[in-house]
Amino acid sequence: MRMYDIISKKRDKQELTKEEISYFIKNLVSGEIPDYQTSALLMAICINGMSDRETLDLTIEMEHSGDCVDLSSLKNTVDKHSTGGVGDKTSLIIVPIAAACGGTVAKMSGRGLGHTGGTIDKLESIPGFKTELSPDVFMKLSKENGLALVGQSGNMAPADKKLYAIRDVTATVSCMPLIVSSIMSKKLAAGAQNIVLDVTVGSGAFIPDINDARVLAQTMVNVGKGAGRNVAAVLTDMDEPLGYSIGNNLEVIEAVDVLKNKGPEDLTFVALTLASEMVSLFSGKPSEECFEECKKVIQNGKALEKFRQMVIAQGGDVSYIDDTTKFKKADYSCEIKAAQSGYISKINTEAIGVSSVMLGAGREKKSDSIDFSAGIRMVKKLGDKVSPQDTIAVLYTSDESRIKDAKAKFESAISYADSYSGERKLVYGVIR
Amino acid sequence: MRMYDIISKKRDKQELTKEEISYFIKNLVSGEIPDYQTSALLMAICINGMSDRETLDLTIEMEHSGDCVDLSSLKNTVDKHSTGGVGDKTSLIIVPIAAACGGTVAKMSGRGLGHTGGTIDKLESIPGFKTELSPDVFMKLSKENGLALVGQSGNMAPADKKLYAIRDVTATVSCMPLIVSSIMSKKLAAGAQNIVLDVTVGSGAFIPDINDARVLAQTMVNVGKGAGRNVAAVLTDMDEPLGYSIGNNLEVIEAVDVLKNKGPEDLTFVALTLASEMVSLFSGKPSEECFEECKKVIQNGKALEKFRQMVIAQGGDVSYIDDTTKFKKADYSCEIKAAQSGYISKINTEAIGVSSVMLGAGREKKSDSIDFSAGIRMVKKLGDKVSPQDTIAVLYTSDESRIKDAKAKFESAISYADSYSGERKLVYGVIR
Repeated sequence: MRMYDIISKKRDKQELTKEEISYFIKNLVSGEIPDYQTSALLMAICINGMSDRETLDLTIEMEHSGDCVDLSSLKNTVDKHSTGGVGDKTSLIIVPIAAACGGTVAKMSGRGLGHTGGTIDKLESIPGFKTELSPDVFMKLSKENGLALVGQSGNMAPADKKLYAIRDVTATVSCMPLIVSSIMSKKLAAGAQNIVLDVTVGSGAFIPDINDARVLAQTMVNVGKGAGRNVAAVLTDMDEPLGYSIGNNLEVIEAVDVLKNKGPEDLTFVALTLASEMVSLFSGKPSEECFEECKKVIQNGKALEKFRQMVIAQGGDVSYIDDTTKFKKADYSCEIKAAQSGYISKINTEAIGVSSVMLGAGREKKSDSIDFSAGIRMVKKLGDKVSPQDTIAVLYTSDESRIKDAKAKFESAISYADSYSGERKLVYGVIR
Repeated sequence: MRMYDIISKKRDKQELTKEEISYFIKNLVSGEIPDYQTSALLMAICINGMSDRETLDLTIEMEHSGDCVDLSSLKNTVDKHSTGGVGDKTSLIIVPIAAACGGTVAKMSGRGLGHTGGTIDKLESIPGFKTELSPDVFMKLSKENGLALVGQSGNMAPADKKLYAIRDVTATVSCMPLIVSSIMSKKLAAGAQNIVLDVTVGSGAFIPDINDARVLAQTMVNVGKGAGRNVAAVLTDMDEPLGYSIGNNLEVIEAVDVLKNKGPEDLTFVALTLASEMVSLFSGKPSEECFEECKKVIQNGKALEKFRQMVIAQGGDVSYIDDTTKFKKADYSCEIKAAQSGYISKINTEAIGVSSVMLGAGREKKSDSIDFSAGIRMVKKLGDKVSPQDTIAVLYTSDESRIKDAKAKFESAISYADSYSGERKLVYGVIR
């Protein structure tokens, strides 16, 4: 078998065999295939596409290119992945809900990069919280408590790392089969039997268009099922930040508010929807029934108790959860006033995320450090009527010099109009 | 400007601007662009194509990426390029014809590689013939004698060398705009005002299909004209070797036979057609008239005299031209008998070329040396009636161990049938 022939087949829009895809991934990881051949094949895939069968084979081959977590000794294992958003702290909420409903969430999460935050960064804003656990402790906590949340470790899906590094510089990132195989190979390697995908849609999403997002969701569900897992995808809105808080400890506080049954409505609804799909997958019960069950574990405090249990088990200071006013507050804040009278008609959510990164809440490059108390609190949201004296948001940072640019970025993200008739949904659908 | 954006434009089937193409070629040659970005762009071009305007801009940019020969002090400069064939010794014939008709042929030619031979190797089979001349001597001989033939020297079209090295290993060779820009950039850099392109068609050609060849020919003519040159393309047959001889000194002998007005009919006709287009381009006279003129300079010995003049001027022993029996003969020969009774119905011309390389007449890789007397003499050709006792070809080599495999290769190339009704043409058309 020769890489040259594999490239020319895909150039000519032919379907690659399982053996050809396996040859490619194995030799990619071993370093046998030069980058210029990989990028030629990626471009051919980008333009000529891949069948569902090819995408599944590629995903499974990438999954097995490195370490795979074995969760087979645990029952009701369930995981969740989001394609990314701004103010998206649902993982912090749904992990304890799913555990309180009988699931086992032995979860690996990522750090923030670019305009989106990362669950691991958020958890580390809780003093003492350890996101690095030995595999033994990770498995023990998952088994005993039904939840554990750690950073990605080991050599998982190294094929994806190699491919992504090349895609990033050859304009082959926005390609459906490559996106699907990248996301799903890592999720499959993480070992859960049940997987819920949160596919975000709108101005803050990786894939803004609803139709493209639907195709992505459907393809990921097909691939996950093809790999023998139970999978559902929820299409959720990202045309504005989810909830009101953006930034690491600000988001923890808001997530804890939801678990204390006093969180914002939109965030609570989206979290309950995602959690109910997770519970439905491992329990087999209809998701409407699971939705009520999830609501109940919030109301009766069981979900909050699971979250507290996780914080204690992973070394965090649980008094911060019991009294979230203890969290460090930013040294500087800046109120943003409405630029005019009218309705907030449009929010460039990605720009809001970038503004938050500029305040110190995220990383522009991997080596940047994070200011846990930096971020943004939205006061007004889409469709709200405002006057020039109204505060629409507050920016927070520990570095006053960051405010000027972040403020300009934030202000550029808000559009106003004389009326607002946007009919919006929080959830656009579920693909099972 | 960023290479990333150029790649993504072509990925999305958009037309690249002149500035973007210029940026790509300049930074390619300076080494700024990594190979994996170049190969991604080449694959996108391969699948999504290029407009005539883009192809012209790419060609001109590649032409100017290195040295350009300045022939502006010479009049009636004329050049010819062939897309490659087996037994194709037309350059040896048409250069002196065109010079005898008043043209100036200051020509650079290549060496053989793969299944096709090269004019420079053929000329070097004439004892003493020097194919490396200083630029001054090259210009002086061209001016005084109207012809000089040297190997490629200097740093001509370095962009093509870089691109070809990547195309060769990323399945992006067979791509029309890339083929056209590769050929034409070098031809334009070689400086002649008038250019005739011999686009071969059939089993020994780089582009076997007549329709593809027509597109290639038309695109090359468009690009050449767009660059301000006079260009014509002749579509010639390569469904069997041209003439009867394949191999370096064997081909010189056959070419000299044509110049002595005793060459084979097919080779003579194709050479006269190409030469008449050359003369027509620089003289402005209709090609039918030029055809008669070219025939005349063969009949009156003026073309042969030009050839002798070139051999003498470039240090070759002209007694070999006057008496071609002086050429070194191969130490070993092997007659090939017809495999059955019937008609020769098909010849895999490329395989014949490969057989000739196996005998020592060509190079499998650049560093191989050449056996000037090795090669093949065809005795029978397409459509000839044969019986098993008939010799259809004779193989020649100085290395007896090469005969077995070369014979098997040759025999695999010949097909027989009970009848032959193939209506064949030597020239499929001229595109002006």
